[in-house]
Amino acid sequence: MEFKINKVCFTKAISDVSKVVSTKALLPVLSGIKIVVNSDHLILSGSNSEIAIERVIPLILNNNIVLDVIETGSVVLSAKHLSEIVKKLPGDIHIKMLEKQLVTIQSEEITIHLNGFSSEEYPTLPDIDLSKHISIPSNKLLEIIEQTMFAVSKNMSRPVLTGINITLSSNEISFIATNSQRLASRKYSLVSDFEESFTISEKSLRELSKLIKNEIHLITIYFSGKYIVFKSDDLTLFSSLIEGSYPNTSRLFPKDAKTIITLNTKQFLQGIDRACLFANEWRNNNVHLEIENKTKIKISSYFSEIGLIEETQPIKEITGETNLKISLDANFLMDALTAIKEEEIKLSFSGSMGPILIEPINNPSYIQLISQVRAN
Amino acid sequence: MEFKINKVCFTKAISDVSKVVSTKALLPVLSGIKIVVNSDHLILSGSNSEIAIERVIPLILNNNIVLDVIETGSVVLSAKHLSEIVKKLPGDIHIKMLEKQLVTIQSEEITIHLNGFSSEEYPTLPDIDLSKHISIPSNKLLEIIEQTMFAVSKNMSRPVLTGINITLSSNEISFIATNSQRLASRKYSLVSDFEESFTISEKSLRELSKLIKNEIHLITIYFSGKYIVFKSDDLTLFSSLIEGSYPNTSRLFPKDAKTIITLNTKQFLQGIDRACLFANEWRNNNVHLEIENKTKIKISSYFSEIGLIEETQPIKEITGETNLKISLDANFLMDALTAIKEEEIKLSFSGSMGPILIEPINNPSYIQLISQVRAN
Repeated sequence: MEFKINKVCFTKAISDVSKVVSTKALLPVLSGIKIVVNSDHLILSGSNSEIAIERVIPLILNNNIVLDVIETGSVVLSAKHLSEIVKKLPGDIHIKMLEKQLVTIQSEEITIHLNGFSSEEYPTLPDIDLSKHISIPSNKLLEIIEQTMFAVSKNMSRPVLTGINITLSSNEISFIATNSQRLASRKYSLVSDFEESFTISEKSLRELSKLIKNEIHLITIYFSGKYIVFKSDDLTLFSSLIEGSYPNTSRLFPKDAKTIITLNTKQFLQGIDRACLFANEWRNNNVHLEIENKTKIKISSYFSEIGLIEETQPIKEITGETNLKISLDANFLMDALTAIKEEEIKLSFSGSMGPILIEPINNPSYIQLISQVRAN
Repeated sequence: MEFKINKVCFTKAISDVSKVVSTKALLPVLSGIKIVVNSDHLILSGSNSEIAIERVIPLILNNNIVLDVIETGSVVLSAKHLSEIVKKLPGDIHIKMLEKQLVTIQSEEITIHLNGFSSEEYPTLPDIDLSKHISIPSNKLLEIIEQTMFAVSKNMSRPVLTGINITLSSNEISFIATNSQRLASRKYSLVSDFEESFTISEKSLRELSKLIKNEIHLITIYFSGKYIVFKSDDLTLFSSLIEGSYPNTSRLFPKDAKTIITLNTKQFLQGIDRACLFANEWRNNNVHLEIENKTKIKISSYFSEIGLIEETQPIKEITGETNLKISLDANFLMDALTAIKEEEIKLSFSGSMGPILIEPINNPSYIQLISQVRAN
């Protein structure tokens, strides 16, 4: 195995792949990155028990020669050392396997000898089942992930709620996350000739969102009973699925609204953020909302020993009952408002202790729910 | 007590003062910031057991009215809450004490009620002894602190070595820090009509360096037997001193050099940084230096299970013995090189196991020593 490679390109690919590699893997080979050098491209792979990532580097990228293969072959090198080394090298990198997994890395006047592992010791990734797949632009996928991911449960007692449920029907894909006290649901229109429903861990989607953040590609999602694969031209992410049936969340949405108000998203977010000053010291993180004179909403929070904060904001529009006073978890409300890109939001309050419904104005594809809490 | 104040100005002053205030002070009043409103200025103070900081805000700053005093008075408010609150307020701030330490903070449509403490409960800072003082520009003082501070001992068994020793003679001030394995000494020329020597904690100088980082002022240093005061127009920092006599370090400097070499500072730093890749995994953080063919220096480090790294760099100038092979703590060497601003450095090696001397070319005011370690 011997090749010369562009530093920037190699560093980026190693950084992407090493994101999922644990430095504390029980088997040392699993703390490594597998490098496979073929005659016309190089493949880097890294994995943990739930996620595997593969990055392909071709010979030519954006009209520049980035890879020169001198001899094909493969090896596994420590992810931690490899990523630290390549970052600190001054220029293009020449890598050669001398003998049994002893690898030399050279750049200008610098020589590094690194002991590797045989690539045969590294687990093989499953073949991709090509039969069931859909495609979605990476920027849309990123938006959908970011608008739902935060609402998952952190409590491992119901593992299925720690993941995001993805349901594919003939005309849309929908992502749902809930921890029983709040819920985020995002739909996206597309055409599919098959139906699927499964739950994927928040961690896998978080890694995926980091990888697709800065580039716009078409991502193809391949479905199989046991795992899911997200694939673009040069990147493949395999993720295991969370077992167990996801609860039916449609019954959680209140049928009738007693009061509906329209607010400016950013201004309301800033108000809740200020109210969090005291809410965070209080055991329930509560913030209180109250309609005043049909035209204003009063946001307040208090902590008896320290003080209280209150402010009023104009209501843009109001329908229904104008006498309203409720308490919510301030952090849930902050997360919900942060995820909304639209300028205005609609809050719908159902009677008594029912959840409130938060929707961006002019975007029916995104709905969130937050349970009320008892005021202290 | 009642005043209106510019948000930016108030936020900055609170942030400066709260740097030294602990949120976990045993007496709640000590987790606070004391606000004293006089007819023509406002004083904020914060402190811990070693350091106290005072910031003055005048009525007018850079031709803008920043403070409007409606009623003089004083109060102590929680540093944590006050700094979080002012950051999140949208505009200028109106503060008023309603009754016994109950303070109202207002900005636009936002009202906050905060319970404070009586300023009489807050300890009084000592009067400044004006008899012994010198002045130094803040950017020079910052440079001197940054070039010595890192070399202090982290080991509390000899408390005096955890501080920086400052010695004032008739024609210079010198700062020395050492942990017995390395030493940094920086001198600065000035005229003084008195002599002094004392040791101040690294923490106090670190806080001072943060406070004077972005503005250039003349700093006046007031000396007294028990504490030291650093004062600019709007800022005063009081620090206690570390008791105990500082060791005489002059005998540590080797008399004769066996070999002297000149190197490019940045290139050598980058080489040592790369060598640290493996040095950090090895119990002594060792990096090895060896002169090759009188013209090059070889930098290497190894960790038997993982690998080795080596590189050569040109020597600009060499005098004396050309046969040399030594080992040093890589982290100490990194710190030493990072602190040097000059383009080239001179390394002087004395015989056998003596320390190496590191000096920037063309700057006799800055000298560092690092002990050799036995090679593994």
